[in-house]
Amino acid sequence: MKESGGRKQGAASPCAACKLLRRRCAHDCVFAPYFPADEPHKFANVHKVFGASNVNKMLQELPVHQRGDAVSSMVYEANARVRDPVYGCVGAISSLQQQIDTLQTQLALAQAEVVHLRVRQTASYSHHGFAPTSPTNS
Amino acid sequence: MKESGGRKQGAASPCAACKLLRRRCAHDCVFAPYFPADEPHKFANVHKVFGASNVNKMLQELPVHQRGDAVSSMVYEANARVRDPVYGCVGAISSLQQQIDTLQTQLALAQAEVVHLRVRQTASYSHHGFAPTSPTNS
Repeated sequence: MKESGGRKQGAASPCAACKLLRRRCAHDCVFAPYFPADEPHKFANVHKVFGASNVNKMLQELPVHQRGDAVSSMVYEANARVRDPVYGCVGAISSLQQQIDTLQTQLALAQAEVVHLRVRQTASYSHHGFAPTSPTNS
Repeated sequence: MKESGGRKQGAASPCAACKLLRRRCAHDCVFAPYFPADEPHKFANVHKVFGASNVNKMLQELPVHQRGDAVSSMVYEANARVRDPVYGCVGAISSLQQQIDTLQTQLALAQAEVVHLRVRQTASYSHHGFAPTSPTNS
């Protein structure tokens, strides 16, 4: 028996999208491979945020091999928007950008310290092969 | 004259949303403060990705003081989805997470080098106040 995504062809139960939309799940339903009947929650948020009609259009405009990734990213975005109706996944982007700023500052400090320690070490070795008896720059 | 967002109350021209949707722009139009007539492109992508009806619902569910931020994040998400129909702004999230991984690795290496250099320096100072004549651990 041929299978398409999570749905058995010719099976009686409609995909999660058609079930929520209360429509007949056609043999070539664009949602069926990505919204199987056993994951009803997956479509609910996507429908709430993007609307079934827009999701349908967006999927139809993509080649089949890219639709799985497009659905995954839409599910991610929709879940983020339901969790945070004001910022959605743009909140995650701001937070990641702040983390990057912090890490870049910490990295610049650590690299500056490496340079400083190396210069000090090189100076102590080149000073007649001996280091000073006590650190003077700490 | 009282103004609400970018729209003059009672002005003849409808907001960018109502113009695109070809409907009368009511005095209390939920879109008008955020989609002024002079920025028609701003609403076009939001409508294409989320649908006017969903945006309307999402805005109605938020207190007025949060709607501006919600519109900004939806405009950002919609523009990202139009630019990259497969990954949308989830593509930006992946890219930022990769940058964070790279920075964390670089930071760990730099911090390990700082520790290594400090230990070497401390050892050379404590060795009768003199450093070895040449580095042995480099």
